This record gives sequence, structure tokens and C-alpha cells, in this order.
Amino acid sequence: MQDAKYDVLGIGHAIVDVLAQTTDAFLTEHGIAKGTMTLVDGFRAETLGRTMKNPIEASGGSCANTMVGIASLGGKAAFIGKVNDDRLGQAFGEDIHKAGVGFDTAPAKGNVATASSHILITPDGQRSMNTYLGCAAALTAADMTAAKIAAAKVLYVEGYLWDTDGAKAAIRTAIAHAKAAGRKVAFTLSDPFCVGRWRDEFKALLEGDVDILFANEAEAKALYETESFDDAFQAIRKLGRTAAITRSAHGAVVLDARHVHILDAEPVDRVEDTTGAGDQYAAGFLFGHARGLPLATCGRLGGIAAAEVISHVGPRPHVSLKSLAAKAGLI
Amino acid sequence: MQDAKYDVLGIGHAIVDVLAQTTDAFLTEHGIAKGTMTLVDGFRAETLGRTMKNPIEASGGSCANTMVGIASLGGKAAFIGKVNDDRLGQAFGEDIHKAGVGFDTAPAKGNVATASSHILITPDGQRSMNTYLGCAAALTAADMTAAKIAAAKVLYVEGYLWDTDGAKAAIRTAIAHAKAAGRKVAFTLSDPFCVGRWRDEFKALLEGDVDILFANEAEAKALYETESFDDAFQAIRKLGRTAAITRSAHGAVVLDARHVHILDAEPVDRVEDTTGAGDQYAAGFLFGHARGLPLATCGRLGGIAAAEVISHVGPRPHVSLKSLAAKAGLI
Repeated sequence: MQDAKYDVLGIGHAIVDVLAQTTDAFLTEHGIAKGTMTLVDGFRAETLGRTMKNPIEASGGSCANTMVGIASLGGKAAFIGKVNDDRLGQAFGEDIHKAGVGFDTAPAKGNVATASSHILITPDGQRSMNTYLGCAAALTAADMTAAKIAAAKVLYVEGYLWDTDGAKAAIRTAIAHAKAAGRKVAFTLSDPFCVGRWRDEFKALLEGDVDILFANEAEAKALYETESFDDAFQAIRKLGRTAAITRSAHGAVVLDARHVHILDAEPVDRVEDTTGAGDQYAAGFLFGHARGLPLATCGRLGGIAAAEVISHVGPRPHVSLKSLAAKAGLI
Repeated sequence: MQDAKYDVLGIGHAIVDVLAQTTDAFLTEHGIAKGTMTLVDGFRAETLGRTMKNPIEASGGSCANTMVGIASLGGKAAFIGKVNDDRLGQAFGEDIHKAGVGFDTAPAKGNVATASSHILITPDGQRSMNTYLGCAAALTAADMTAAKIAAAKVLYVEGYLWDTDGAKAAIRTAIAHAKAAGRKVAFTLSDPFCVGRWRDEFKALLEGDVDILFANEAEAKALYETESFDDAFQAIRKLGRTAAITRSAHGAVVLDARHVHILDAEPVDRVEDTTGAGDQYAAGFLFGHARGLPLATCGRLGGIAAAEVISHVGPRPHVSLKSLAAKAGLI
């Protein structure tokens, strides 16, 4: 097995977050349900984009956020995701490059725009998200060359991508390349509803090619259709793989074929915004894993990264995660 | 191995609780620190007993409470503990017999009175305990006959007893009898300060004759001198024995050489008084273990018993734990 250029290569939806402060009246006028994530079409996204005042743009998406977290830890991360060659697509590329993440996926051709999530923040701090997936799922096998996949120690895949047949086929290609190159495959369940839609296929993946599983408690329970955390934990333990199950304020349980660690949540002065906690947890854990650190240390790195991101608004770290990890004596 | 007459035989301090409502002024007048447990001498106990108005008496003590919980679950429990043949000693015996627990330890001779805990409850619901250990630790090897110890599937010992050389020697005799009869030995760490005083001896016991360990999170951390729950858990896991580690609102972790279960706390409408939560947890777990139920079921029985006792004032169950366990489908 040749040396890897990257610690982790992630595949996910490339989404540009468009954030703006707004009023309750604006939400009412545009029929937006406060505090939820709603999938919207291109027309709606465009309308919102035109109406929002002084928006801030930032490249986002669950897996891309994780790759940015790995870079913040001092890791080498790359991302495969589909944008259009439009203004938002260019912004996505610039932003993720600035964060130090490798990204050179060929932009989609045609009229389907770059995915966006128009996020409206009301004075009460609530975030109402209007996500338009655009061309984000238009990934193809051609985006996953064997050389690109083999260049990272770990391939990390977002469960969200399972909703589109083309993306699913592309991911299967990527997983096959990773296995052929002796690389590890990591997978996040992404969302309890996503798990509900793809339960059997996700289970088959976990019993098959996945080496490292990420799930939060709700996703783990959804996967095994139980109300009991312990039942879900037992089922995951039976897989005999590496897994990290996050439990919000209850911390996380990390395990592999031989070990189980029950880790408390890292202390946070004030939880400002839990968006991105799971993404950053995965960043910390994957960085540790790729660097060969002990399982418990991987879990603590995840906890530290998650604690940083929930202590402020926005799903990406505001300070160097590397310095936080060093301060905690973990790296 | 012959059939056992009892599921569990407990050895602990026999203490009579003397409870009364009082005022803050009474606490101030008598120099009692609110909300704490203070060890007092016989004179002080007698004075408080004379001054308290309309006191209620109930047999208590950590291990005795556990035996009462086992009886409430429909289990067969017996208790070895030392009282004097005084009024409180007679009250202890009557009370524990009424609860269905076997108890025939010969009363102590001499002037040292039965142990008591004078508990003053102020209008804010706080409990200030003044515990006089009296003759409770005056257990001898003669109280632990081989036949008596062999009569129970599990011998359960309270760590509190370690503070007196005589009681310690008596317990070592009991443990030897249990081992010779092929019975299981269970041990509770009782209290973080108690662990601090006897850390090395407790560790030697756990690596030696103890088959089942009970600890709450603070005790487990105290034993292994760590601030990290996971570190304490790893150390306990290394013992390769059966253990239950309780974590208050975070539930409990139960384990044996092969399994680990991470169990949520049972829901409680309103926590009224956490006194006795650990004792009743042990009752549920030990009952399940003695009846050969699966490890996770033992843990859930513990959780249900603990949830009952914290939902009201007082360290013993107010309703039949057997009916609660049946309702939950566990027995």
C-alpha cells in the first residue's frame, strides 16, 4: 500500500449556505416554518436569494464541514462534491480551498444550479433553513477515479447522498476503489429520516464494506428500529467494526471489535448553536483515526471539535482545532 | 452445591432512622449543618432523640435497605447486622421482619446502643442526618456461620463496614465461607470517602474474591483516582467481573467479562429525594442476578427500583417493586 497524500477524502453534497438576519414578518410573508429545514426548488431558492438582505455566503454541507474540521486540526483533507460553474459554485470552491481542503471535482454541466441553503436567522436566534439540492447529487463514477480514492487513508461518505441513484452508484464505485487500495471506508448515517428511507441498504453496507460508522443516538435507534439506546448499541457492537455514537449532552460511545469507551461530553460554557456538532465530531475522530491515535483519543478529539462548534453560531470551527487539541494534550 | 434458601444475604450496618420535621431555628440551636451527614456520638444521639418532636422510626442502613428492596421484588433476602437489645434494636428487628427479610443476628451485649440516624427535615425539604454508629460495627466471626452464609446464592457486603477492624475480620470470614460453598460475593463501595480510606484494600478485594461490584460514578472515580468516567470504567472492565456503575441521571453501565450495556435512567416524573437510590439499584440488580436473568435485565431492574425510591421521600420502596418489574415486562 502506497503512502497516502490525504488523511481523509470526503464525498458529500456541496452546498453553499446563504445566511441573513431577518424578521418574523419576513418568515410569515414568505411562508417559512421557523426553526426547521425545508427542501425547496430552484425557483424558490432564487426568489429567497433575491429577497434576503445583506446575505453572507459560506461553503457548507455536512461532509464538506467535516473536511474543513480535519484541515483545522492540521490534517490533510480532500472533498469530492458537485457544484455548477455558476457564481455560488465558484464561491464554494474558493471557500473550501481557503480552508485548506483539496477540491477539484469537475463542475456539473447544464442549467441545474449549485445547491444552496438559504438560512434565515430571526431575532430569537432560531435558524430556518431552505435547502435546494440543485446539482449536488449529480456525482458520477467519473468523479471517483481509482487514483483519487487511493490517495487518502480513509474514504468518508455522507448517508444523505443515498437519496439519488446516480450518486449511490458513484459512491459504490468509490468504495470499491478504496477497498482495492486497502483504504478504510467511513460512513455517516446523516439523519434519522435518511435512515428510515434506506435502512436495509445501510445495514447491508455496515455489514459489508464500512470500517468506521458515525451515528448519533437518534440515527442509531432509527437504524435498528428501537427506542432503547442500549439495544442500538448492542446491534452496532455486533458489527465488530469501529463506530462512534454521539449522544449530545450525554457524550459519546466509541467502540471497535475489542474496546468500548464511554466518553463524557466536553464542557461548554454556553451552547449557542448545535448545527454541525456531528460533522465536527466526525472531523476530530477521523483525524485521530487516520493518524493512528488510540480509540479513546479519537473520541476525545471528536468531543473537543464538537464542543468548539456548538459554542458559537455556524457549522465550522472559529478557532484552530489543532490548538484546542494540543491544549488538551491529545496531539 | 446445595439449593439456596435465600437469593441474597446482606451484611451491613443495622441503623434505625429517626425522622422528624423541624425548623431552621432548631438546626441553628443544635449546631446542625443542613443537608449533610454528620457522624455523632452516643450522647449527642440521645440528646437529639429526646429533643425531636413526633419522630418516626424505621429500620434503615444501606445494605438493610437493599435487602428490603429484594423482598419487595419477591426475592428471598436475609440480613446480618448488629443491634443492641434496646428499644431501637427491637424496633429494627420488628421492622425488617415486617418487610419480609430474614434477620436473627444475636444482639450485642453491653452498653453501646443500637445505631441511629437522627434525620431532621426542614421545610425546604432538606435532610440533615446525624448518624451514631453505636454497636453496628460490632460484628464478629461468630455471627457468620458457614451454614448461614451458604444458605444464600449471593453474599452482599457493604463497604462502610471496612472502617472497623472487627467487622472487617468478620466479613473476611463470611467471604471465605461463601467461596467455600460456591456462592457469589457482591460488594458495594458505599461512599467516595470510604473508598479514599480503603482504596488499596478495596482494590485487592475486587481483584480477589469479589464477583459482583456496585459503585456509583463518584466512587468508581475515587477508587481509581481519576476525573474521567471512562478511565474508571476501563479499570473496572479490566477486572473481568460483573459490575454495575450507576450514574444518576446518566443511567448506568453494567458489564461482565463479555458484555457491556449502557442503560438510560428510568423516567421519573419528579425527583423528590435521592436517598437510597444506590441501595435500591443494588436490590434490583442482585434480585435479577440471583434469579439468573440476563445482565441487561438485571440493570433495568436496578433502574426501576432506583426510580421508585427517588420519586418519594425515604430510602425504601413505597409500592411493590415486583409489580413495577412485572409491568415493565422484566419478570
